[in-house]
This record gives sequence, structure tokens and C-alpha cells, in this order.
Amino acid sequence: MDSNDLPHVKQIELKKAMSVDELLREMGASGVFGAGKLAKAADIFTAMVKDAECVTFLGVAGALVPGGMRNILIDIVNLGYADVVVTTGAILTHDMVEALGHRHYQGSEHANDQELFDAGFDRMYDSYMPNKAYGDIEHFFSSHYAELKDITTIRALLLKIGQLLPGKSLLGACAQNNIPLFSPALADSGIGLMMYNLIAAHKPIAAKAFDDLPEMINLAWGKKCGVVYLGGGVPKNFIQQAMQFAGGASYGIQITTDRPEAGGSSGAELKEGISWGKLHNDAMHVTVPCDVTIALPLIVAAAKSRL
Amino acid sequence: MDSNDLPHVKQIELKKAMSVDELLREMGASGVFGAGKLAKAADIFTAMVKDAECVTFLGVAGALVPGGMRNILIDIVNLGYADVVVTTGAILTHDMVEALGHRHYQGSEHANDQELFDAGFDRMYDSYMPNKAYGDIEHFFSSHYAELKDITTIRALLLKIGQLLPGKSLLGACAQNNIPLFSPALADSGIGLMMYNLIAAHKPIAAKAFDDLPEMINLAWGKKCGVVYLGGGVPKNFIQQAMQFAGGASYGIQITTDRPEAGGSSGAELKEGISWGKLHNDAMHVTVPCDVTIALPLIVAAAKSRL
Amino acid sequence: MDSNDLPHVKQIELKKAMSVDELLREMGASGVFGAGKLAKAADIFTAMVKDAECVTFLGVAGALVPGGMRNILIDIVNLGYADVVVTTGAILTHDMVEALGHRHYQGSEHANDQELFDAGFDRMYDSYMPNKAYGDIEHFFSSHYAELKDITTIRALLLKIGQLLPGKSLLGACAQNNIPLFSPALADSGIGLMMYNLIAAHKPIAAKAFDDLPEMINLAWGKKCGVVYLGGGVPKNFIQQAMQFAGGASYGIQITTDRPEAGGSSGAELKEGISWGKLHNDAMHVTVPCDVTIALPLIVAAAKSRL
Amino acid sequence: MDSNDLPHVKQIELKKAMSVDELLREMGASGVFGAGKLAKAADIFTAMVKDAECVTFLGVAGALVPGGMRNILIDIVNLGYADVVVTTGAILTHDMVEALGHRHYQGSEHANDQELFDAGFDRMYDSYMPNKAYGDIEHFFSSHYAELKDITTIRALLLKIGQLLPGKSLLGACAQNNIPLFSPALADSGIGLMMYNLIAAHKPIAAKAFDDLPEMINLAWGKKCGVVYLGGGVPKNFIQQAMQFAGGASYGIQITTDRPEAGGSSGAELKEGISWGKLHNDAMHVTVPCDVTIALPLIVAAAKSRL
Repeated sequence: MDSNDLPHVKQIELKKAMSVDELLREMGASGVFGAGKLAKAADIFTAMVKDAECVTFLGVAGALVPGGMRNILIDIVNLGYADVVVTTGAILTHDMVEALGHRHYQGSEHANDQELFDAGFDRMYDSYMPNKAYGDIEHFFSSHYAELKDITTIRALLLKIGQLLPGKSLLGACAQNNIPLFSPALADSGIGLMMYNLIAAHKPIAAKAFDDLPEMINLAWGKKCGVVYLGGGVPKNFIQQAMQFAGGASYGIQITTDRPEAGGSSGAELKEGISWGKLHNDAMHVTVPCDVTIALPLIVAAAKSRL
Repeated sequence: MDSNDLPHVKQIELKKAMSVDELLREMGASGVFGAGKLAKAADIFTAMVKDAECVTFLGVAGALVPGGMRNILIDIVNLGYADVVVTTGAILTHDMVEALGHRHYQGSEHANDQELFDAGFDRMYDSYMPNKAYGDIEHFFSSHYAELKDITTIRALLLKIGQLLPGKSLLGACAQNNIPLFSPALADSGIGLMMYNLIAAHKPIAAKAFDDLPEMINLAWGKKCGVVYLGGGVPKNFIQQAMQFAGGASYGIQITTDRPEAGGSSGAELKEGISWGKLHNDAMHVTVPCDVTIALPLIVAAAKSRL
Repeated sequence: MDSNDLPHVKQIELKKAMSVDELLREMGASGVFGAGKLAKAADIFTAMVKDAECVTFLGVAGALVPGGMRNILIDIVNLGYADVVVTTGAILTHDMVEALGHRHYQGSEHANDQELFDAGFDRMYDSYMPNKAYGDIEHFFSSHYAELKDITTIRALLLKIGQLLPGKSLLGACAQNNIPLFSPALADSGIGLMMYNLIAAHKPIAAKAFDDLPEMINLAWGKKCGVVYLGGGVPKNFIQQAMQFAGGASYGIQITTDRPEAGGSSGAELKEGISWGKLHNDAMHVTVPCDVTIALPLIVAAAKSRL
Repeated sequence: MDSNDLPHVKQIELKKAMSVDELLREMGASGVFGAGKLAKAADIFTAMVKDAECVTFLGVAGALVPGGMRNILIDIVNLGYADVVVTTGAILTHDMVEALGHRHYQGSEHANDQELFDAGFDRMYDSYMPNKAYGDIEHFFSSHYAELKDITTIRALLLKIGQLLPGKSLLGACAQNNIPLFSPALADSGIGLMMYNLIAAHKPIAAKAFDDLPEMINLAWGKKCGVVYLGGGVPKNFIQQAMQFAGGASYGIQITTDRPEAGGSSGAELKEGISWGKLHNDAMHVTVPCDVTIALPLIVAAAKSRL
């Protein structure tokens, strides 16, 4: 090994009115630590979107809607940056909260939680959701029960919800753009509790537990795939298991503050997926150890300039 | 405030052949930082198990079976330390792997993942699973298809699997002890892929997506409850949402290395649950920022001595 | 409490060719999680630099020069964004490495470290320093021994080094701009080892261990102060202890991935400093849990646009 | 590769009244994730203490005295488990606080810091120090000024303080056992501020900045060495740079919650030291990502049983 074989760390130069894209290029030229990984993620994201053959799977976990990322997620779908979306139930519940006219609020992680309870705010770190929003979600589901009750997959249920939901939403954007939206653990969410309310009132819901799998796996089967993981949890793992049927993803980005050492899937480095056949050995991939609310806007703003 | 109002930090004294229980008592007397939280978790765990009124919910996520925690989990069920168990699908898949005679192996986080793929090992940080184990799981499900196909809840499906599975297992222990076992995201796991295989072969599986919710919520409804979270993910959140129907848990322990700042449920401090009505304002509770494979054996070993 | 009392979380809007400053304003309007903290840090940084009364102390730890932050640090000094600088010895050693014509290189955290040793590269995560650089540093100190040997404070020693060092450097920028530069643990660094070489060759170095303290404390005494901590360690703590003589800092920013729960100073939230008299109770302050190589360029790029 | 080549993960078995040593042996047989690393650390610690040739260097950073670890550190010195000790100034300041009859107190990380300030308590996460303790430290130094003023190294200054300090202390234990104790950044601590008080009152302190280096490096030169790092900071780095003169440490343990990705020395994996010549390529070594107050008592309790 020789220093001529290695790119040097370019010291980053800042300038007035610098664009996000320019800054990420500087970070890419520096090439190390968090900045290097973030820049690489932006490059890989652009590459997978540009690659006409590539089917891009987006996994979304964490309180990203209360965290201000909702319009970026909707942009990703509307601009064609993702071909398949998998989320937690909470992401979709929060999306409905805002679609139905409620907002999240800026609070404090040091708040008195009993006072918040008394005032009707549900805290997620320093973001608050007004508890009364659930009333409107409940009304949505009770008034649309007839249209939802016989649907046998969660994916089709979400498509119908997206079609029925007023205003701008992630659910609606997926429906309008024919982007398959999955949420295999939907029972574990505010939306799940609405289904419970119906079932407890003797209004059955036909959706089945495993019947989304054939469509999900067919979307990956034999394709050149890219994966983008915002957080871990079920969305990451559900996409990862489909990647085995693609012969491994060709592009991969993961943004998370979860740690790998304890062995769980959410914090696991993408590289580990090579052993499982979930990632090609020669895939472009990077794990960015960063808060999604910092990294995602940077990556997508750069992509908007580049694409 | 006055120093007489505050317990002092007792400097921990170690001795030869000290028991885990004695060490945790010393840590409790020191009372601060990680040691203080770990000792508090052991005290709360003992208190909730001793409380005859308390229904204890155990949420289990992460690669705990590849991490050597399987017998501890089985012990918790067999000794009556938990009344309801919720896990990821991966926990149960790994449990089946070992029940069917396979083992996990000690490897390295610096391994060459392509070599592992070629050799048939799936890596989880520094623990390896032999890929061939899936063949036996597939055989289990295809040979028991008739007994599983018409079951309409995941919880009942898991009970049946636990009854059918040979040898010692977490699935079996729950079945034998009448401990309800839930895994609402079971589709997202190796077991889920086995269901996919059956469905793809035109062998339908009747299990429904939301029909576990009534039993889960009834288990909490109006009860004095305790919660123990090993990692976060769906198991934590699924129990948390049930706690709203209990008027908030009275005891709470969470062990995780996930961080709270990014806002997601997995890293959220238990305290935040007070705002949601998921935790009593006067509950005994603690969040231990530690690897579960370190903290759990200490807590359960102390409990075995104390109970 | 009422939702009218609370600002709502504005969902971030991205646009093509967006500037860093514009993005940080969007993040500030979202106001929560990491993005909210980052935006707040940019606002506080701008406020403390604009405040003509405020003496700004910059503490710098970690491998920021191998991480591409060298020109940003030099900019901060040249643009008058900091009035006092405190660093680890490593920061200054790496600064000399580049001033003397060497570079750092982009490598891999998965490298074979024995191969790197054989090839003469010192690894810091995924950045490499050519070991031969030390030869030039040694030559610098042996040839300038006469000018350095009788200097009795580390701060004056660093001023002289800054005056003697060729080319652009952080040491030189501080010297040229009359910005006091401290490095109280300089013995603990490559520069320290050069001092060892001289001392071992019977060439004494007069610098004393505690004689920087009067100047450092006088810089804070009775002043309105601001603090900016990039990482923790000695630079943070050395500034923090001076803040007690200022009656507590009025502005505070800390960027670190260190954790608070284990109790150490490096990961401690700034808020804790209120109990010590190191931070005003009404100070503007924020702790950003982020890699410095991501957060610092964003904050300084925004400041360049705003100032 | 074949499963016969790899040890399997033994599922941990717990029993009533289990000793810490027995539990760590179970964790060693499981061999993976945090438990595996912790057990390995206990094994390496025992091995380096047993190795009569090995010079063991202990680096200590973080609020370990307010965290209840003081008697364990004193035990390590009294039992001959360490041959050289390097600490931050804070460790020694807190050691003096307790030696002079004060205690630390169990508080809360959610405390009102202004109330603590008013009540005279300095907060370190959830441990409080009574601010009045500084008065006694100041008295100690002013009354012993004559014995300290002409000492030219920090190491000799600490030896003298250890001889003068009443009661049981880490400083005293090092003095009594002839264990060299270094604290190269002593100016950056409460003790440093006492030196400042003297200097500001025209009472000079002779200690020099770099004159500890020859003794420190001679202690390592050409020796078989072991390193134990509790936290990072100056103590780790000061020992690491000496290891280059030993041809690299033969044994290494690091316990920290700091992260490697941002590139700083405190979070860097020990493995990286191989590239620098600070660690032998064939050294037994492990980095345990854990709170020191949890891991250290376990490791030392096991060592007490084994040695």
C-alpha cells in the first residue's frame, strides 16, 4: 500500500450561500467519518434512482412525521424516488393525524409528562401529538367500514385508505402513484387500535396476516434492487427478507442511530446482509450513523439538485 | 434541599465469591449511573413478580437466541415471572432453529461476509446461524400444514406450533404454561417466509391480521400491570398500546441500547409513556441503557435468589 | 397547556439548489429531534458571534483534522467567530502534519491493521495518517529548540509554534489573529512526544503545568461568554471550569456522540452546567447528538451566509 | 468453514445464589454480543494480572468516584492488579473530596439545575457533589503549599499529595504501594483550580508540563505490557502513546460507551492501535461497549475469585 493508491482527505471548504448539494460534494471529497458516509449515501441514492433497472424499496420507521419528515417522504413518492414503500403502523397513523387536519407540536424532552397527559398531549421525545386526533381517525374508520371490511391484504387496505383520505398524505401519494405500500405490523399502531374498536363492536376485518408476502416477494424476485432504510424495525427486516429473492440488493443505504454490537437487526450494518444473500457482495452500500431528521433532508435535497 | 435528604453514593465493595445478588445490592446502594439503574431494574422486576395482582407483560426483540438468552427466556416463563409474552418473529424463528437441533455459533463481527455466504452461515454481528436450519423449519411447517391452516389468530397459531415442536423451547414453554404468546409481525420473519412458501404453493393460511388485538387488550384491561422490555420494536409498542387500557402500567423496566433523541418508540424512555397513559405517574420504572445480554442475566439471576 | 401555546412542527419543504442556510431554517421551523437541535445550534452560534460583548470560547477534541474539518476551524478563527481556542494535543499534531506538507488519506474501518502498520499508516477509524510525518515534526522541533526551550507556558509555546510554522494552519491562524490558543494536555500527543525526545536528549523544556490557568481564567472573569464544544475531553472541561469565573456562560453549543448516562463530562448535557455555575440558568444552549463532521459544516456554512 | 470449526453459542444457564464468577463463565461460553465481550474482558484481565512479566497500565476517566467505583479502584491498586495508573484530574479531585470526609449523593438526571445550584450541589448526571467540599480541598493545598511548591513533575506532586492525604484514597493507595500515578491534564480539574488559586496569590508551583514523559515512557520501554481503559480521554491516549515504546501492548481491555465512527481516540476500538504499533497484532484484546459502573465491578469481582 502506498499513499498514491489512496485518495487524500480533502479539507472541506465552505462558502457563503453554499447549496446543500455543494456541501455534500465537499463532504464526499473529504470522504471519512460521518461526513464521508453521508456524502456516499447521497451518491448511492442518486445512483439507484437514476438506474432505470433498479427497483427501489424504502423502509420507514421511527417518529418521522412528528419529526418533520412527512413532506420529504411524500416528495420521494411523488418524484418517483421509491418504487415500493414499507412503514411501521405509527408512520401511517401520524400521517393520518396530519391528513385529518391535526398537527404535531414543538415541546421539550424535559416536560412534565403528567401535565401533558392532563392537557391531552402524547409526547414523542420533544414532539407532541394532540390526543384528540384519535377521535377523527376513529370517525374515519367507522364511516368507511363498509369499504374496508372485506379487503384481505394489508397492502390493499392501505391502498383503499389512501384513496379515501382527504388532503395530501403519504398514504394518498402511494395510492395515486401506484406505489405499493406495506405495513406488516399494522396491528401494532393507532390504526391497529381502530381495527380493534371495530372488531370489538362485532365488525370483523378480513385482512389476513401473511397474504401480503406473495406480492412483496414478487416485487423483488429476480430484480436489480436498491434499499433505503430510515431506521430499522419491521420495515427494514421485511425488505431485507425479500432481498433474498432478488439475489441480494445492488444498492443500499441505512440511516440509524441504533448500534450493531447488541446483535439486533435494526442496528446491524448492511454489510452483514452479504452473508444472508440480502446484499450483493459488490453492492454500493453505506450505513450512516445519524439522526434521520438530519441526514434525510440533506440526501434528498442533494438528489433534487442532481436528478 | 440538604444532603440529609439524599441517600449518599455508597462506594461499592467487592468480595471473593460474591453472588450476583450481593453485587446488585451493592450497585443499588451506590445508586447512580448504569449500576444504579441496573440494580433498580432488578428490584422492580422482583417487586412485580412478587405482586400477586400484577399481570407482567414481557416484550422481546433483538437477536437474543443467537445471543445466548434462550434458556433465560424459557426460565422466565417456566418460573412464572411473566404472564404474557410478545416477541418479534425472529425470536421465534431462532427458537425453532434450536428446538429442531441446530445451534448458533461464535464468530466475528469482522468476518468476510461473502465467505460466510459461501459456507452457509447467516451472520448476526458475531453470532452465526447455519442456513441449512431453514430446511428443517420448512419441513416442520409443510408436515404440519393441516393442523395450522385454519387457525385464525397468530396467538393461536403460535400455541399450536408450541404444542407440536419437539424438545425444549420458548414456544413450547409458553404453550405448556398457558402463557399467551403474541407476535403481531410474524409475517416479517423466517416463519413468515414459511407461510409464504405455503401460500405460494396454493396452501392458504387463515390467520388474520388484527384478530389478536381483542385478547391482548383484554389481558390488560383494568388490570394492575407490569412491563419488561428487552429491546424495543413491535413487542414494546404492542404492549405499550395495551397499557392504555390498563390505565397505565404500575411497574416498568426497559433494557436497550437504542437512543431517545431521534424520537422513535424503541429508544424512548419509559417516562414518556406517562403522557400517553401507558405508564402510571407513580409507577416504579427504569430504563437501563445496556446490552440485554449483559443486563438480563444479572437481573434474572438476582431474581432467582430473591424469589 | 393548549396547542395555541405551542409552535407546531412545520413539515420540512425541500427545493432544488436549496442553500444550507435555507435548509437549516426549515429544520428550525420543524423544531424537533436532531434537526431541531441542529438548527438551534446554528441560531445560537450566529447569536453569540453577533453579540459584540460575548467572548466566544471554542473547545476542539477528536480527530477533526483527519476528518476534513481543518479549513473550517481555520475559517472560524480568521473570520473572528471564536475569541479563545482550546484543543487537544492531537488536533495540533494533526494540524502540524498538514502544515508540513503531509495529508490524511481515505481508508476503511475494516482495514487489516497489521498491513497498515507495515505500510506506515496510522489508522483513525477510516482516515489514515502517514507515519513518516512524525519525522518532519521532529525536525521542526529540533531545529527550533532554542526558540522554544525557555517559554514557560503552553499557550506561549503554541503561539511561538504558530509563528514559526510554514503555510496555512490552525496554529498559525491563532497566532496571526491574536487568538489565545490553549492545549493543557499537550504532553499527551505527538507534540508531547517531541518534547520527550528533546528532554530525553538532555534538552529541557521550561513550560510549566499550571501557569496557563491565570490567563485562561482572566479571559472569562466577569465576561459575557459563549461556549462551543466540538467533542468533549479536556477542551470542554478546561473551558467549563473557566466559566465558573464568568458567572456561567450565556450561550452554549455542544456537538458530540458521547452519551450522558455514564456520568462523564464529555457526554454530559450542557444543562447540567447550571448546577455548577458554568451555565446561566437563562442561557441559550443546545446539545446536538451528532457527528461533528456532519453538524459543524452545516452550522458554519449557515453562519457564513448570515453574518 | 464448517460448524465443527466454530464453538457454538452455549445458552446461558442461571441458578440461585450464582456467583459473579460463575455467571461470567456462562457468558464466556455463550461467547457473543456484549456478554461475550464482557466475559472475554474478565479473562484477559485475569491473564494480564497473572502474567508476572506483564506491566499493567490502568487508564481511568469519567465520573467513576461519584459513580461508586472508588473502592474498586483502590482495591485494584492494593491487590497489585495494576502497575501504573493514569487518571483525569477529576478522578483525583473526587477522590480528595471523599478522602476529606465528603460524600457524593444519589440524585436525578431530571433535576432542576438552578435549584441544585442554589442548594450547593454540583450535578454529574444523577450523582451530586456538595460544592462546599472545595473549601476543604483549598485548605489542604494552602496548608501544604510549602511541601508541594518545588516539586517539578505532576507524578511526584501526586505522590506527595497521596502521602499527605488523610484516610483511605486512590491517591494514598498509589503512594503506599509505590504505584506510579500520572495525571498529565491535572491543570484541567478542581485540583488545577487550587493551583490557580495559589499562583494567583503569587505562590508559584514548579511542576513542569512535559517532565512526566521520561518516567512514563521508561515504564513501558521494551516491556511486555497490558492496558486497561476505563473510559477514554487523556488517560487512554497517554498510555497508548507509551505503548509504542513497548512495541505494542500484549493485553488490552477497553470499557466505554463512546462510539468509534466519529474517529476520536476515546471511542476508537483497540484493534486500530495495531496500525500505530500500540497493540501487538497477536494481543488478547477486547472493547466492551458498556457503562463502566456495570462492567468494572463484574470483571474485578470475577478476578478476585480467580486470583
